[in-house]
Amino acid sequence: MINIGLIGFGNVGQGVYDILDQNGDMISGRIGSPISIKRIVVRSPEKYQDKVPSSVSLSADVNDILDDPDIQIVVEVIGGEFPAYDIITKALQNKKFVVTANKEVMSKHKKEFFKLAKENAVDIYFEAAVGGGIPIIRSLKVGFAANKINAFYGIVNGTTNYILTKIAEEKKSFDAVLKTAQELGFAEADPTMDVSGLDAAYKCTILAAVAFKLDVQLDDIYYEGIENISLKDIEYAKELGYHIKLLSFGKRDANNHFELFVYPALIPEEHPLANVRNEFNATYIVGDHVDESMLLGKGAGAAPTGSAVVSDIIDISFGLSQSVSFRNLETLFISGNVRPFEDTASRFFLRLLVSDQAGTLEKITAQFSAQSVNIENIIQKEHKDQDAEVVIVTQSLSEKHCDSLIKRLEETAEITRIISKIRVHKL
Amino acid sequence: MINIGLIGFGNVGQGVYDILDQNGDMISGRIGSPISIKRIVVRSPEKYQDKVPSSVSLSADVNDILDDPDIQIVVEVIGGEFPAYDIITKALQNKKFVVTANKEVMSKHKKEFFKLAKENAVDIYFEAAVGGGIPIIRSLKVGFAANKINAFYGIVNGTTNYILTKIAEEKKSFDAVLKTAQELGFAEADPTMDVSGLDAAYKCTILAAVAFKLDVQLDDIYYEGIENISLKDIEYAKELGYHIKLLSFGKRDANNHFELFVYPALIPEEHPLANVRNEFNATYIVGDHVDESMLLGKGAGAAPTGSAVVSDIIDISFGLSQSVSFRNLETLFISGNVRPFEDTASRFFLRLLVSDQAGTLEKITAQFSAQSVNIENIIQKEHKDQDAEVVIVTQSLSEKHCDSLIKRLEETAEITRIISKIRVHKL
Repeated sequence: MINIGLIGFGNVGQGVYDILDQNGDMISGRIGSPISIKRIVVRSPEKYQDKVPSSVSLSADVNDILDDPDIQIVVEVIGGEFPAYDIITKALQNKKFVVTANKEVMSKHKKEFFKLAKENAVDIYFEAAVGGGIPIIRSLKVGFAANKINAFYGIVNGTTNYILTKIAEEKKSFDAVLKTAQELGFAEADPTMDVSGLDAAYKCTILAAVAFKLDVQLDDIYYEGIENISLKDIEYAKELGYHIKLLSFGKRDANNHFELFVYPALIPEEHPLANVRNEFNATYIVGDHVDESMLLGKGAGAAPTGSAVVSDIIDISFGLSQSVSFRNLETLFISGNVRPFEDTASRFFLRLLVSDQAGTLEKITAQFSAQSVNIENIIQKEHKDQDAEVVIVTQSLSEKHCDSLIKRLEETAEITRIISKIRVHKL
Repeated sequence: MINIGLIGFGNVGQGVYDILDQNGDMISGRIGSPISIKRIVVRSPEKYQDKVPSSVSLSADVNDILDDPDIQIVVEVIGGEFPAYDIITKALQNKKFVVTANKEVMSKHKKEFFKLAKENAVDIYFEAAVGGGIPIIRSLKVGFAANKINAFYGIVNGTTNYILTKIAEEKKSFDAVLKTAQELGFAEADPTMDVSGLDAAYKCTILAAVAFKLDVQLDDIYYEGIENISLKDIEYAKELGYHIKLLSFGKRDANNHFELFVYPALIPEEHPLANVRNEFNATYIVGDHVDESMLLGKGAGAAPTGSAVVSDIIDISFGLSQSVSFRNLETLFISGNVRPFEDTASRFFLRLLVSDQAGTLEKITAQFSAQSVNIENIIQKEHKDQDAEVVIVTQSLSEKHCDSLIKRLEETAEITRIISKIRVHKL
C-alpha cells in the first residue's frame, strides 16, 4: 500500500485528488500496488469535509503528514517559498519522497534539496514546476540522458503566450487582451509575476539545473517581460516573417560558458516554437546526439499540472512497490560561468519614430555604419504629419554593442524616439 | 560494472557505439557505475577490427553475447523479424535486459516479449523503434502515466514527411522530390516500406500497444501511403488552409472501441502537427487529464536513434546499479475492438476532373445531395480545353458512405475522373 500525504488543496491539489479518484484503478494496476491519499493538510479542514470521503483524513497541521510513518510520498502543492521550504526539508529528512509543483522554492533551493534527498536515500520530483503537464524534466533526466544538452528554448509561461497570441491573431492592444485574459482566468488579477517574465525566469533556472546541472539563482540571469510589446511590433515582425514569443533561453558552449536569459524574441514563423499558440507551453532542446527536439503541451491548469504530479507519484511508486528505484539528479553540480548578459549576442528588431524629411533614412543608416552594424532588413512605414516609422533588423551583435548603437541613435536629430527594441532569434 | 552486448554494427549500432564513446564519462556518472560495450556481434568481425579498441571483442556468433553471464544488457540493432525474434527471445529467457530499435519485430511479437520479460524479471525497451530520438514511448509509459490516453496522431515516418514538405515548399513533383531524397539519403533505393505507409503502420501498432495496451497486428489496421499525393492536391489543400501529412492515427471511445489507421490527411495549417517539416517526426497525444501534448524530433539517423537506444540503456542501468527497477509494460493487455475501417469517419477532400459546360457544377452537387452529403468547401479551377477541375471538401462521413458517393460520382457523365480522395482531419 502506497500512502500519499497531500499538502495544499487548491487548484492543483484538487487536480491531483481528482486524477487519483478517477484513474485510481488503472494507476494501481500500473504500479502493482494499491495507492491512495491518506491525509490532506489544509488551513481550514472543516471547509473540505464534504468534498472527500471519510477514508481521507483532513488536518491543519503539516506534521500530521511529515511525522506519519505510513506516508511514503509527500505532495507539496501550496506554492511560494515559505512554508514550502520547511515542509520539503523536513519531509526529506524524514526519508519521504517529495513531489512538488512549486517553481519558486525549487528555483531557490534545488541544490540543497537534491543533497538532502541523496543523504536520505529518497528523491524530490518536480515535473509540474516547469511546463505543467509536459514531461520535460523527465525527458531531460531520462529520455535525453544519452546527450549533453547544448541549448534549450522554452515557452514556459502560458499567460504571456496567450496574450501574445491574441494580440497577433485578434489585432488587439496589450491592455485589451490582458483584460480578456483576466476575465477568462488565463491571467491573474495581479499579472506581474507572469507579464514581467519572473515566472519564466524561475523556470529558466530550473531548466538550467536539469539540462546543464548548473546551480544558478534568479540574480544570475537577465529577464525582461512583455509589457512593452505592442500590436505594431507584432505586425512588423509578421511582415518580416517572424512571430514574437517570450523565450526562456539557455545555451552552453564548449568551455562550459553559459548564456541564460528570459526576454521576448522574434522567432522565424516556420519554426515549431513560433506555432505554439494560446496558453500552450513548449521547450525546444538541442542535444549533442538527439539533435533538435520539442515537447509541447498545456503549461497550467488543475488537470495538466495534476497529471504531472501524479505521473511523478507513479514513477516513485514503481520503485517503492517493486524495490528501490532512484533517479536522483546528480548532487554534484558542474561548475560553469554564466556569460554577462551584456556580452550575449542576437539580432535586434528596432522600431524608430523619425522625422519625415528627405535624407532622413541616409542619416539613420549612416549611424549604423558608424557603429559598424550591418542592417539585414529595413521597412519604412506610415507617414503621419511630420513623423514616419522605420523598422530595422540588425546583424547579430552584443547587448553592449547594441546599447552604444542606441545611445548614438538617441542623439540623432532625425530620430524622434526609439519605440521598440526586441531580440531576433533565427534558431 | 555494466556490460553491454551489441548485436549489429550498421548505422544505428555505430551511433550507439559513438555516443557511449563520446559521452561515456558523463553517462557513467549519471548511472553511478562504469558502463561499456563488452562485445559486438557482426557478420564479418574482421571488417571492424580497426574501428573498435582491443577491449571490445568482436564475434560472428550471437551466443557469445547471449550466453555471457557478464553481459546484463543486449542491444539488438539488426532490424527485421528474423533472426531478431530468436535473439530477443533467448536474451530474455537468459534474464538479460533487451534494448531494440526494431519496429517490425516489436510490432509482430510485442505481447510475447512483454510476457517473457516479466516471467524472467527483466524488461525490453524499444524507444528507438518509434520516432527515433523522441522519448514518446517513455513519455506514454511514465510522463503521461496518470492519464488514460484517448488519441494519438503521429507523423512517424521521416522519409514521407520530407517528401511531402519538399513537394509543398519547392513546388516539385512527387517523383522529382523522391529522386532528390534518395540522393540525399532521406529515402531508400527501394522506398516502398516508407512510401507505402508500411513503416508508419508498424509504428502505429506499437503506439497502440503503449498508449492503449492494445495488442493489434498489421492485418488489423488499414494503411495507405503517399504515392498518389500530387503537388496539385497539396496546393489546393493549402488554399483551403491545410497541410497534407501522413498520419498514424489511434483513438479510443468510452466503450474501448478503437480506430487505428495510417493515411495521408489534411491537417489545419495552424495546428502544431502541420508545422512538422522535413525529416522531423512528431506524436500528438490527447490524455484525459494532460489534455493535448506533442513531442517532436528527428525520427531517424544514427545519432538520434542511437540517443534513444543509449537513453534506454541508461534507464536500465540506473536500476541495475542501484537495485532493481522495473518498468514493464503491463503484460495484461486490455480487450478492445478495432472499428472496421469502413465505419470510421472523416471529412473528404475530393479532386474531380469535370467537363467544362454550363450546369456541370449543379449536376455534381446534386449527386452529393442525393447521397445526403453536405459540402463544406468547393473550388472550381483551371479550364483547359473542355475540362475543368473541381475540389470539394465534404462534411464528416464514414468510409462506406464515401465509397457509395464515389461510385455515384463515377457514374455521373459530367465527371471525367476522380483524381484524388484524401481525408481531412480538423483535430
